[in-house]
Amino acid sequence: MIPDDERAARAALTRIAEPGDAELAQLAGLHGAVEAVARIRSGEIRSGSADHWRVRLTGYDPHRDLAAAAAVGARLVCPGDEEWPAPLDDLDGVRLPEIRGGLPFGLWVRGPLELTAACARSVAIVGCRAATEYGENVAADIAHGVAQAGLTVTSGAAYGIDAAAHRGALVADAPTVAVLACGVDVSYPRGHVALLERIAAEGLVVSEVPPGCAPTKLRFLTRNRIIAALSQGTVVVEAGLRSGARNTARWALELMRVVMGVPGPVTSADSAGVHELLRQPEPILVTDPGEVLEAVSAIGENLAPLKFGAVDHRDQLGEVTGRVLDAVPAVRAVSVGRIATTAGLCTDVTGGHLASLLLQDFVEQHDGGWRLSASQRRARRTCTAS
Amino acid sequence: MIPDDERAARAALTRIAEPGDAELAQLAGLHGAVEAVARIRSGEIRSGSADHWRVRLTGYDPHRDLAAAAAVGARLVCPGDEEWPAPLDDLDGVRLPEIRGGLPFGLWVRGPLELTAACARSVAIVGCRAATEYGENVAADIAHGVAQAGLTVTSGAAYGIDAAAHRGALVADAPTVAVLACGVDVSYPRGHVALLERIAAEGLVVSEVPPGCAPTKLRFLTRNRIIAALSQGTVVVEAGLRSGARNTARWALELMRVVMGVPGPVTSADSAGVHELLRQPEPILVTDPGEVLEAVSAIGENLAPLKFGAVDHRDQLGEVTGRVLDAVPAVRAVSVGRIATTAGLCTDVTGGHLASLLLQDFVEQHDGGWRLSASQRRARRTCTAS
Repeated sequence: MIPDDERAARAALTRIAEPGDAELAQLAGLHGAVEAVARIRSGEIRSGSADHWRVRLTGYDPHRDLAAAAAVGARLVCPGDEEWPAPLDDLDGVRLPEIRGGLPFGLWVRGPLELTAACARSVAIVGCRAATEYGENVAADIAHGVAQAGLTVTSGAAYGIDAAAHRGALVADAPTVAVLACGVDVSYPRGHVALLERIAAEGLVVSEVPPGCAPTKLRFLTRNRIIAALSQGTVVVEAGLRSGARNTARWALELMRVVMGVPGPVTSADSAGVHELLRQPEPILVTDPGEVLEAVSAIGENLAPLKFGAVDHRDQLGEVTGRVLDAVPAVRAVSVGRIATTAGLCTDVTGGHLASLLLQDFVEQHDGGWRLSASQRRARRTCTAS
Repeated sequence: MIPDDERAARAALTRIAEPGDAELAQLAGLHGAVEAVARIRSGEIRSGSADHWRVRLTGYDPHRDLAAAAAVGARLVCPGDEEWPAPLDDLDGVRLPEIRGGLPFGLWVRGPLELTAACARSVAIVGCRAATEYGENVAADIAHGVAQAGLTVTSGAAYGIDAAAHRGALVADAPTVAVLACGVDVSYPRGHVALLERIAAEGLVVSEVPPGCAPTKLRFLTRNRIIAALSQGTVVVEAGLRSGARNTARWALELMRVVMGVPGPVTSADSAGVHELLRQPEPILVTDPGEVLEAVSAIGENLAPLKFGAVDHRDQLGEVTGRVLDAVPAVRAVSVGRIATTAGLCTDVTGGHLASLLLQDFVEQHDGGWRLSASQRRARRTCTAS
């Protein structure tokens, strides 16, 4: 646990600047959080940014934020705390070309779980808000499946895919973590009051911005890096070409996390962003929880079974027997001689193979000739091999 | 052009053995086609296979097959002929673990085009028979698009995806090549009589097996290697886990051709085979003709445009201006002071940025306060960024 005055200073740092402020991070790195806040407050630091920071510090008492957090069962978890997840440190110095990033000064955490434990094995499942029924169903199924396998489901509590992912985990009675772009005491979006309360009661609600803050575009984009960093892998379920979920995937790639995408119809704008993602070399196409589990597990563990269709016993016939079977008509029975000609074999060789095929229920005798058995006729009708 | 007696001997070789018979290929390689046929006929070659070959040679005159071909406007194209496409030679010695392959003795070719020219730039578009409407539409769209770009569309003339691909090319008045598992004069499947006639009249119908032959399972699987070899790339549109289209993709990979897959809903069994394919490292996910064109073109040519959503002019605002805009409410107008507090800026700095945002139609004045402009409100309602 870090000292109280450092926690209070870090609360102030989350309050006076927007997430990812590199100048403030540098100052805190140089002097420590307590000293950095003191120097800004005293006016000793002179820059355009420092003026803005000072505006927000005017009359500000960090204990008000800490108390507001405590009132909803939240605390500020900081680097150096036992509850600070080591994977978050991967964020140090990481940014995207057009979006600032870096290590947060702390995370406001609300809920009964321990953040480090909750994120030890976690998958982020994210996607667009205006999702289709298909996307929401698939997100819920994958979340439910990985949750049952013991993984935490992390997402952003937005409408659409995010909500479906949290709900899939909740239905499995499994831990789920919602990372917000607003304060952990703010019900945003409004329609998710009940969902957020339930996640706060059973899982964790996390944010980099202090209590009471509203979400902004910058906060959404920087929030996404926390989702990516808290998970071993990120699954994008549906995303338009400009969806924020693609931004989360970019953070995950930048952080060397596993990035996965669930495909959909190429005619759906909601899948276009996922498909564009899957055309890059690193991201992995996934279709079910088992494939997600495999992708975030150590190499060789939790291997998803390779998918095969039903076994076709025809494949196990010898080549000549197969040729005879290929020459047997489905419905209208014909003579052994006719089958021999079609197969290009002598009549007696053909007769021997027909007898063997009869014993294996591939063919039957009918009207004094030979034709396929009823089960083979059925199998052929449904066969799509070509 | 090869000598007449060699063409007649090669006609006989396509008649007396099933495609991919390695023993017969070795014999023909050792003695030449003419001498190999003579030795089989004379009984000089002694083996179980030779006995079967001899059965089929009994009373057989290759000129009957050549005449039957000529009667439907077909010829036998052989290695050494000018019309023999060099890419087919890649098949020499190529087989899959459980399916024999190798170079065909010749190809029966029906139609007005020259095979070499028709396949100089060709894409195979294949998929399952029991396709969905989605799959057929996408196959036709991709075929139409690549055909308009000057590529030949090669497929297998089966129901479902294959037929949609051929039709897409025909609608574009572009060359299309159907490779069959039966004779080029056989209308299989029966429902495709008209389609096959049209392809034979405008494009090419091709087969490794001689006129009159019926399709068999082995012939389908070996036929697929010809489709793969005649094309620079193979696109799988829909395929169940046991679809023959996956077999075509495997041949294409074995032949170092480009393999592409069109994704679909993960809930559709018809896309499961494509998704399994796209989980391998080499195959490329494609969603439209441009992406197919790029994949089969030389590096740097025909680059598919990267897909972006509509440009969001918000992204081009400076950071502080963006922060001010983020603090402006959508509907209920508020004072400059309120916006300044939310943005964490002084009132006069905030006022300056609001004026600039007003000029760019991001915000408007209303009831003595500020709120988003009508166009921004519209944009936010449809925005899925999070």
